[in-house]
Amino acid sequence: MTASSAHAHDSFVRRHVGTDPDAQRHMLEVLGFDSLDEMLTAAVPSTILLDQAQGAGGAASGNTGSVVPEGVTEPAALAELQALAERNTVRRSLIGLGYHGTHTPAVIQRNVLENPAWYTAYTPYQPEISQGRLEALLTFQTMICDLTGMDVSNASTLDEATSAAEAMLLARRAVKRNGNVFLVDADTLPATKAVLQGRADGLGIELREVDFAADGVPEGDYFGALVQYPGASGRVWDPRDVLAEVKSTKAVAIVSADLLALTMLASPGALGADVTVGTSQRFGIPLGFGGPHAGFVAVRKGLERQLPGRLVGVSKDADGNPAYRLSLQTREQHIRREKATSAITTAQVLLAVMAAMYAVYHGPDGLTRIGRTVADRTASLADLLRRSGFDLVSDSFFDTLEVRATGSAGDIAASLAEAGYLVHTVDDDLVHLSLDETVTAADLEAIAAAFAPHAPDPGQEVAEVASGAGWEGLVREDPFLQHPVFSSFPSETAMMRYLRRLGDRDFALDRGMIPLGSCTMKLNAATEMAGVTWAGFNALHPFAPREDVEGYLEMITQLEIWLADLTGYDTVSLQPNAGSQGEFAGLLAIRAYHASRGEGGRDVCLVPSSAHGTNAASAVIAGLRVVVVASDAHGNIDLDDLKQKLKDHGEELAAIMITYPSTHGVYEEEVRTVCELVHDAGGQVYVDGANLNALLQVARPGEFGGDVSHLNLHKTFCIPHGGGGPGVGPVAAKAHLAPFLPGHPAMQQAEHPVTGQGARPHGGPPVSQAPYGSPSILPITWTYIRLMGPDGLRHATGSAVLAANYMARRLSESYEILYTGENGLVAHECIVDLRPFTARTGISVDDVAKRLIDYGFHAPTMSFPVAGTFMIEPTESEDLAEIDRFVDAMLMIAKEAEEVVAGTWPKDDNPLVNAPHTAASIATGEWTHPYSREVAVYPGSWTVLEDDSVHDSAQMRIQSKYWPPVRRIDQAFGDRNLVPTWPRD
Amino acid sequence: MTASSAHAHDSFVRRHVGTDPDAQRHMLEVLGFDSLDEMLTAAVPSTILLDQAQGAGGAASGNTGSVVPEGVTEPAALAELQALAERNTVRRSLIGLGYHGTHTPAVIQRNVLENPAWYTAYTPYQPEISQGRLEALLTFQTMICDLTGMDVSNASTLDEATSAAEAMLLARRAVKRNGNVFLVDADTLPATKAVLQGRADGLGIELREVDFAADGVPEGDYFGALVQYPGASGRVWDPRDVLAEVKSTKAVAIVSADLLALTMLASPGALGADVTVGTSQRFGIPLGFGGPHAGFVAVRKGLERQLPGRLVGVSKDADGNPAYRLSLQTREQHIRREKATSAITTAQVLLAVMAAMYAVYHGPDGLTRIGRTVADRTASLADLLRRSGFDLVSDSFFDTLEVRATGSAGDIAASLAEAGYLVHTVDDDLVHLSLDETVTAADLEAIAAAFAPHAPDPGQEVAEVASGAGWEGLVREDPFLQHPVFSSFPSETAMMRYLRRLGDRDFALDRGMIPLGSCTMKLNAATEMAGVTWAGFNALHPFAPREDVEGYLEMITQLEIWLADLTGYDTVSLQPNAGSQGEFAGLLAIRAYHASRGEGGRDVCLVPSSAHGTNAASAVIAGLRVVVVASDAHGNIDLDDLKQKLKDHGEELAAIMITYPSTHGVYEEEVRTVCELVHDAGGQVYVDGANLNALLQVARPGEFGGDVSHLNLHKTFCIPHGGGGPGVGPVAAKAHLAPFLPGHPAMQQAEHPVTGQGARPHGGPPVSQAPYGSPSILPITWTYIRLMGPDGLRHATGSAVLAANYMARRLSESYEILYTGENGLVAHECIVDLRPFTARTGISVDDVAKRLIDYGFHAPTMSFPVAGTFMIEPTESEDLAEIDRFVDAMLMIAKEAEEVVAGTWPKDDNPLVNAPHTAASIATGEWTHPYSREVAVYPGSWTVLEDDSVHDSAQMRIQSKYWPPVRRIDQAFGDRNLVPTWPRD
Repeated sequence: MTASSAHAHDSFVRRHVGTDPDAQRHMLEVLGFDSLDEMLTAAVPSTILLDQAQGAGGAASGNTGSVVPEGVTEPAALAELQALAERNTVRRSLIGLGYHGTHTPAVIQRNVLENPAWYTAYTPYQPEISQGRLEALLTFQTMICDLTGMDVSNASTLDEATSAAEAMLLARRAVKRNGNVFLVDADTLPATKAVLQGRADGLGIELREVDFAADGVPEGDYFGALVQYPGASGRVWDPRDVLAEVKSTKAVAIVSADLLALTMLASPGALGADVTVGTSQRFGIPLGFGGPHAGFVAVRKGLERQLPGRLVGVSKDADGNPAYRLSLQTREQHIRREKATSAITTAQVLLAVMAAMYAVYHGPDGLTRIGRTVADRTASLADLLRRSGFDLVSDSFFDTLEVRATGSAGDIAASLAEAGYLVHTVDDDLVHLSLDETVTAADLEAIAAAFAPHAPDPGQEVAEVASGAGWEGLVREDPFLQHPVFSSFPSETAMMRYLRRLGDRDFALDRGMIPLGSCTMKLNAATEMAGVTWAGFNALHPFAPREDVEGYLEMITQLEIWLADLTGYDTVSLQPNAGSQGEFAGLLAIRAYHASRGEGGRDVCLVPSSAHGTNAASAVIAGLRVVVVASDAHGNIDLDDLKQKLKDHGEELAAIMITYPSTHGVYEEEVRTVCELVHDAGGQVYVDGANLNALLQVARPGEFGGDVSHLNLHKTFCIPHGGGGPGVGPVAAKAHLAPFLPGHPAMQQAEHPVTGQGARPHGGPPVSQAPYGSPSILPITWTYIRLMGPDGLRHATGSAVLAANYMARRLSESYEILYTGENGLVAHECIVDLRPFTARTGISVDDVAKRLIDYGFHAPTMSFPVAGTFMIEPTESEDLAEIDRFVDAMLMIAKEAEEVVAGTWPKDDNPLVNAPHTAASIATGEWTHPYSREVAVYPGSWTVLEDDSVHDSAQMRIQSKYWPPVRRIDQAFGDRNLVPTWPRD
Repeated sequence: MTASSAHAHDSFVRRHVGTDPDAQRHMLEVLGFDSLDEMLTAAVPSTILLDQAQGAGGAASGNTGSVVPEGVTEPAALAELQALAERNTVRRSLIGLGYHGTHTPAVIQRNVLENPAWYTAYTPYQPEISQGRLEALLTFQTMICDLTGMDVSNASTLDEATSAAEAMLLARRAVKRNGNVFLVDADTLPATKAVLQGRADGLGIELREVDFAADGVPEGDYFGALVQYPGASGRVWDPRDVLAEVKSTKAVAIVSADLLALTMLASPGALGADVTVGTSQRFGIPLGFGGPHAGFVAVRKGLERQLPGRLVGVSKDADGNPAYRLSLQTREQHIRREKATSAITTAQVLLAVMAAMYAVYHGPDGLTRIGRTVADRTASLADLLRRSGFDLVSDSFFDTLEVRATGSAGDIAASLAEAGYLVHTVDDDLVHLSLDETVTAADLEAIAAAFAPHAPDPGQEVAEVASGAGWEGLVREDPFLQHPVFSSFPSETAMMRYLRRLGDRDFALDRGMIPLGSCTMKLNAATEMAGVTWAGFNALHPFAPREDVEGYLEMITQLEIWLADLTGYDTVSLQPNAGSQGEFAGLLAIRAYHASRGEGGRDVCLVPSSAHGTNAASAVIAGLRVVVVASDAHGNIDLDDLKQKLKDHGEELAAIMITYPSTHGVYEEEVRTVCELVHDAGGQVYVDGANLNALLQVARPGEFGGDVSHLNLHKTFCIPHGGGGPGVGPVAAKAHLAPFLPGHPAMQQAEHPVTGQGARPHGGPPVSQAPYGSPSILPITWTYIRLMGPDGLRHATGSAVLAANYMARRLSESYEILYTGENGLVAHECIVDLRPFTARTGISVDDVAKRLIDYGFHAPTMSFPVAGTFMIEPTESEDLAEIDRFVDAMLMIAKEAEEVVAGTWPKDDNPLVNAPHTAASIATGEWTHPYSREVAVYPGSWTVLEDDSVHDSAQMRIQSKYWPPVRRIDQAFGDRNLVPTWPRD
């Protein structure tokens, strides 16, 4: 790349990449290279390495060979993005269908959604330094359980439709017999039906639609049934008998419920449901053209071990204090691998936190008032409409009306659009609209006025419609949100401080490095985040008409084209709202492709033994049989075993799933050969994009053999991890797979810039509830690519690989690096093998991880992909000082372990096994440990305190030390004594 | 007020007021009242108390008797504000004249400007808990000193014009002889001249305008001279000889310089200046229609004790570690009172922090590049214009051109406006424009294209203009910003973490109560803050044409009308950008009023002995003689002494300055009598609005006798303190003073909603550089009033008074409350007399203040207005839990002091005299104190730990404890060894 462009002072590249030219020179010297390019040439197999002209243009030419435009400055990128946002038209949506307008409390928007302390945190796998968001998630679970009447809720799932799909799979897991049929309420959201259908097809489940309200439960075997409550049409009816009937056959009774309606209506639990699913979007989460927001799956007692997704529980720490952690993790598919039966890794933590805080902010009284107001206003509107002469399909409703308007539904919708409101027209004769907390009395008049001219019989005399009509036996009586957390912070001052206290307990990227291998915790720049909270992006309903979302469609099309180019594919779908969904979509496409060629029998998916756990899980959920391919001693795919497996499975071969660079953090030399072998055997090649941060503008999976990949925009493309979600997992594919990528029944299509046709030929089943998944966070990725340009992206890749190799080199002083390529280099991450260290010292991976907290760091990825190891990925965004500080900490920890070996400190009482140390733990009067308090809490900075300059010195680091709020947490205790909510008496 | 409206769930009032109805019932019960109204009736003299209908409408009527509209919900208020913002037209400003476009780095906007940890902090009078912003301010001072070539800079002043005025006063202080003349460069910014003139008039200084560049220094005596560099016209010339000549007469040589130009040009220090003033606006601070931004006054060694405003220096703490603090505070006018000679209390800390961080972010290389680019682009534009046939007034310039365009300046401006650019037309023949860092090469072409059609002689052949022409001897050679702080955080990740570490060291409202009497640290709601960062408010130049700022003018007019109504006055000027400026403006109006009636001899200003120190200072600076009126034993104005003073001064009486409620925190019964007595004697009544938080919708100063008041929008009206600024200090007056309130030569006038004329009849001299002072923070106040409505404001007042009285009642268990009204009640704050406590226990006010830090609180106001006391103001925003926690801490401290009396702990070694305790201080191996580590650092929460529920419990408070970064700071050491910058070698 051109050094001048990436290092130009107003270039964003130098803000994004932590190491400046001086630092890089030093690091390259340590490794024995003269330039990044020289290092990349050594590290990356020549069979796949793009030459510079292809990848990023020669230093002189400026010819990038990429459709990705040259990077621009931050103000310029924002101006372009703003222009796109302004091409969207924000009308008030009354479309409903699972998405509702809501007011995000400003105190939550500012202090959570716009606060890096919340949005740059990682998934709370290190619970000691994640207590803030774990507490918020416990509150989320409590809120869901209270409102739904369930006992245990996860926190969280991706949206309502995928939650329903997960519930269907849960039912199948829980019910060992009862056949292969799943019943779906006819009055279920269309998007939910479509997602269920796609998931059912993958697994051979027969989906049967039933009008439960009219027809009750049909005869015959089925393992589960899903009832929408209130119905998608808005109808409120009593599903008690249906649920009872379902349960009487030992099938699982599932309700998909609206959380706000549950403030007024009897809970699914009270009505007899086994499982309740839904979304918390209308609890303060902007519409965002469909996402992200947090869904949920909640269950009655007895089903908790079947629950998909993450579950927070209360345990205790080494001092016996209560502490939160993720419970029952053995259920998670990344651990269950090919035994997995669920496809959730990414939760929606940031959104779940916001929804929980919305409930904390409003409290039970506030939520009740909001629910009642919505119900009352809906009744008022119904009244106005009926007085104008309109008929309603149902007179029993909560927030949604279906209005008969023979032949004039379109005209009414147009009048409403003119007045600034969007509705859903079911067909020419039926207008569907939903009210929400943002609807005012003035809105009712405006809406009614837009309807009035189209009234069939304006003079009609009708009885008044009151809210609550037809709710007999369904009026909620049991209280909810009775725990003090829901009534302690009603003032903004109290709320702001609570959010600060929670945030302060967590370690996020705004405090220090989070060197998580395979997770790519890089900078989430403030400029990239800006668009997320613009109304032009976050106030649009996912089913808004195309003319209202032209800017969005343009941005999405640009992003798809850029991502396709960067990966070497022909087409991209941005719909999957998590990596797991992208994998699932990609594998479905492979299956559909084979089937389209009359090779539907191909159902074997090869997965290397080193693969990410979700790979195998996704394959299973896509209906494939997993066959494991062995690794050789270097961690690479064993070509002989591959050939054998190809031979063994012949015509059954559907695909191979590989990760590149491998999950071992190495650029495997033979990747092109692997792809060719599989292709020759008639299989498709799935390249997991998790490690794309080592490839951008250096190699392209679509060029070296991939047919399809999913990307992780929350890894390589700067969407922050949000403390455990949201994520976006686009799927990219070669042209022959394009027709099988996810479509959507309500997808708005931009014109393709070249063909003038709808841009996307994607016709597969949807994998997300919304046509474009989680669009409101796509501006982050769009902005990142726009800022970096092809040169900047290549520089970032090189810098990431440099950082990993520099770190590996320095760490090798005390630790063993498990795998390297033929040239001794790793890719963008390295695996530190702690097993010999542990064997010699007795100090475990866990001890080192927790001791790193005392040094002020987040632990690397632990025991993945190899037990007993750390996988470390510094990314390109860390600067040399932080990288060196981390290495220094690791080396000091090695020395500390030697003190244990030497007997200075006993094996069961040393700073490693006792880590982490809280401030409270050193305030105790009697200090019984054989090491000092200073060693306990200031191990790193204390030893380098001789530096007495003030700024950014050891002194300041001591003064600004991150204090873990709790000591080491007892994991087993928490699983044995599952406490998944606040006390609920 | 109507309980239902303020407590309605969507009412903002219940978010703003911390105590809910249950809490208030409890608090009222403690005090023996049934309702807020009953309490207010008891506390407030009946002679001034508004009846409810006047103040806020009866419970039933809904008739508020106020022009302030009923409060609305947060989304509704934001929608209205957004509509106002959209009525402004954002064009790119090339107007210059001291205000320049700039890019606020997104990482600074998000992590400082939009982060309550920074903007809700108080002035750093408690340095131990203000180390973050003090470090940032030391960086600001270093930046100013480096660029200007001065030795000591303050941090900070209000704007460039008032900085120039302060420098003039500094010169007068420093030069004891040399007469009464001050020389001003003819090529000085017009606004600076106007502000200087107003200030000079007040003090009888003769301002003499000189064209230094053309005419050199005139003969005759003068005490100082100010040179603008580069000139306001853009001309770059060498003022070396002029400065030398000025200094040779022992007068003070002052330069008003452009910071960005100083990256290219020799510094004023190198040219011989004694003092340099200016603004840091273009270092990342949005234009904001004029403010706020941080000005500065920097001096050579020897003048530091004459420096106005705040000065940060390095000292050391009790452990000998370096620590920052405000130095040389005895210079400040609130301490010097009637001896004061400067009028700065409010600094612009938040903006100074941002400007300093802009320098940290860009570093010396970045700033140099920005400066060079601006110079080069200006030269390119000059070239383009000259090639088109235009003449320039000067060929030597940095960023500003004056273009001759005989007769067509207006047409050119119109063409540019069409193209989206604003310029300044000096007259029909001259176009003035300035470039800034936001101007791109594309802009140059667009600008030149707009000029081209108006060219006098399109075919002209001219020599190329290069940047740097005419800079001979003026090219900067000395390096700047060489300290590592300016080059350690170039990546956004590093910058974000540095900002977090700095912010974490400070205690702001987002952590806990800051119960500062007379400072009203109430909620700064996120919704109120939203508009501040909208381009529709923050991207407008202060001299943008009226048609571009209609929305602003409308908002300002509304706000003026509301504030006038709430205070009982007829007119309001929002121009003063600090309380001190408002006071000054009000007193100038009084003087001018007297003079207009031929009573110019009235120059005595009565000031009660209890008055705020700035009152006397402002009077002196307005040219008044201060005469002190005694207080009686109850702290009230001594009516007998008042009568005597009125008699003594007869025709000399200009005014009395009173504060109401008094600075003693009491509603004085006789205030109406005091006002009548003064009026009868021909004087005017100045009511200091500092304590307006006890009056809104309860009493109106303009109704009980005030002629003029200043308000503090950063106290009563929710503008956050920003860690020590910005503030806004509007002046409100009766109609007879209206003509004398601050005008401005460039003021845009909205039409008055009734008269259709310009809304403001204000014709006094300006007190701020910009016509409307600091308009970009006015949306905060506008939003607050719009949200609260008259009922809500009255409820807030009552709640604030309730909180203060409840706190006083509980504290009286262990402490003496110094002053109360006749009914035993205080107003919105109370003075706790620690003198008897100190006498008995030996524990000082300071000890208690610092010990409160260990308990997790910011100290109250110390030793003001009475030495040896605390003045405590909880405000309406604190909830009962926080109020009780604070009282509990104070009571526990009293018990701790008893242990000292009892001899349990020695007088010189106890947790009080050793407070605050850092985390590092308890990590030490040997603990030699007679109290435990637990007592040291967890005194409050530790004792209440029996509560074992998890949420918001003592446990969580321990886990989230605020740790002071340093121990008690040695104040004297810092003054003896002044270190006002980072090391600069």
